[in-house]
Amino acid sequence: MGEAATVVKNKQVLFKSHPIGAPKETDFQFCEDSTISLEVPEGSNGVLLKNLYLSCDPYMRFLMAPGSGIEEELSNYAVSSPIKGYGVSKVVDSKHPNFQNGDLVWGTTGWEEYSLITKPDDLTTIEHKDIPLSYYTGILGMPGLTAYAGFYEICKPKVGDKVYVSAAAGSIGQLVGQFAKSAGCYVVGSAGSKEKVDLLKNKLGFDDAFNYNEQEIDAALKRYFPEGIDIYFENVGGKALDTVVLNMRMHGRIALCGMISQYNLEKHEGVHNLIQLIFRNIRMEGFTSFAYRHVYSKMLDFMLPYIREKKIICVEDIAEGLENGPAAFVGLFTGRNVGKQLVALAAK
Amino acid sequence: MGEAATVVKNKQVLFKSHPIGAPKETDFQFCEDSTISLEVPEGSNGVLLKNLYLSCDPYMRFLMAPGSGIEEELSNYAVSSPIKGYGVSKVVDSKHPNFQNGDLVWGTTGWEEYSLITKPDDLTTIEHKDIPLSYYTGILGMPGLTAYAGFYEICKPKVGDKVYVSAAAGSIGQLVGQFAKSAGCYVVGSAGSKEKVDLLKNKLGFDDAFNYNEQEIDAALKRYFPEGIDIYFENVGGKALDTVVLNMRMHGRIALCGMISQYNLEKHEGVHNLIQLIFRNIRMEGFTSFAYRHVYSKMLDFMLPYIREKKIICVEDIAEGLENGPAAFVGLFTGRNVGKQLVALAAK
Repeated sequence: MGEAATVVKNKQVLFKSHPIGAPKETDFQFCEDSTISLEVPEGSNGVLLKNLYLSCDPYMRFLMAPGSGIEEELSNYAVSSPIKGYGVSKVVDSKHPNFQNGDLVWGTTGWEEYSLITKPDDLTTIEHKDIPLSYYTGILGMPGLTAYAGFYEICKPKVGDKVYVSAAAGSIGQLVGQFAKSAGCYVVGSAGSKEKVDLLKNKLGFDDAFNYNEQEIDAALKRYFPEGIDIYFENVGGKALDTVVLNMRMHGRIALCGMISQYNLEKHEGVHNLIQLIFRNIRMEGFTSFAYRHVYSKMLDFMLPYIREKKIICVEDIAEGLENGPAAFVGLFTGRNVGKQLVALAAK
Repeated sequence: MGEAATVVKNKQVLFKSHPIGAPKETDFQFCEDSTISLEVPEGSNGVLLKNLYLSCDPYMRFLMAPGSGIEEELSNYAVSSPIKGYGVSKVVDSKHPNFQNGDLVWGTTGWEEYSLITKPDDLTTIEHKDIPLSYYTGILGMPGLTAYAGFYEICKPKVGDKVYVSAAAGSIGQLVGQFAKSAGCYVVGSAGSKEKVDLLKNKLGFDDAFNYNEQEIDAALKRYFPEGIDIYFENVGGKALDTVVLNMRMHGRIALCGMISQYNLEKHEGVHNLIQLIFRNIRMEGFTSFAYRHVYSKMLDFMLPYIREKKIICVEDIAEGLENGPAAFVGLFTGRNVGKQLVALAAK
């Protein structure tokens, strides 16, 4: 039955232990001993991927907890198995009708050089190859869809709306700020370092930005939003959310995208000011990109011209080499990264 | 210039002191010494009302706190002035073009026999007089509009949705439950006594109901909603909200209408589970009836046939006499009332 399949070495990052508090590099294990066949087994309709870029995203912290996962689509990491996450990959072998050898795809893959994906239906074929491939972990991948759906579909911006974005230098926040400007809004972002604040103000076009480590949030919001906030794009949660609620205007909208300040806590901080949502007629809506897959092609139509004309840019923080993946991921929670954090494995 | 105006005695309930914790009858003062002219002063475009029914509503607790009020339209009570609230009244004199002597109106008035309303624009003339007048403090007044807007405009029910209503025997909850049934939903309510639970199950048509003083809420919700809750109509807040969030389904909707469990607290309880709004793509929306005045006539068109055919009923708890108003209001916070609490002053 055909010639023997090629078997190659396959470096991997395995999940080693459930973190307590912030994830540490020692919760991962870099492994150089594995091998993999580059052929999809007979009887499978899977694909064999060569991974080019891997994405570091805060939601992955949840999958490191013991438990059953946060979505139907997402199960928690099993100890001694490779970390799962979004990536950009090349199809090396396919027994699935939607994918051909040589196709470039983005979607969920493993933190390893090669991955066998047995249920590849959720992989998306990359059709626009003039865009840097790494962008499909960010601006044209899950974070891009999240920012687009959260801002346009949930916040429903109007010209002149006052927009506040937290974690604004992150993969999603940086896009929301640029969307807000293109929609004719006033937008202020917060981030945790002078470098990030400079980036927001000088490169990403935010009207203003502040460092939450240097300025008390309530005072800063009152200064930047003397008439209050119409749209809050929430990436941090906890006490920050409690403070923002007190600075919202009537009929404000809060897109709950993430709560990175809370992910390492055993019990999340309490939010005490929700009564203000009643008095101020505020809509607060949580969402994940899973629920907005149907707008991805609309998002592409919208984003591609902006990207090609460099009217929307994507700041990336690229770690080189799979072995540097754990440090890159851990850095998300110390604020080390500036922009979209990813890991480059191979150029093609 | 004309004959002297008739001056009459005017019994009043005055605001006496800012409550600490639950309001007490001693925070009010019943006063029999005042007098009032039954003629609107020259130069005013106000109306002079004879108050027939006064409404006891939980939001009034906020106006008893020191501070500047909760809405543009609502200022906090001034010590030694009459309590303000919704009521049904008869126009005794009018210098406003919209109102004639003898008109029946509902809207904000004072806790007194007669009130001079200097800015009567927000009063609504009662056109459908075949309905009991007291209903205009409830089912056809602010609570009715609140229930209607919250359920139809915010929760957007679909046939088969699973609906949970807290404080379900109250003026708003009882209507939401009946709306849910008429919309083809499954609805369970909670309340604080056996009498109220019986009312919900046997008179108001809820599919089921439970006493939160006898059943732990999380276990009850898991029993009544094994597949989770699609719509939560929130009237209590705090820990209850935290528990409900954990029992919501994907794409659930939470209408934040009130948080009566929190109103007497110096600091509201923290809500810790908001991350679930993200994972489950839940929309939580606060609202007040002020923002939905524009749907009142649509609401009337919808409700009047149901009321006339007794397909929607209104359970009232009527205190007789202005002097019993303070006890009736205080009872809202001990759960004493069964159904819409109001105070009857005069039949016409």
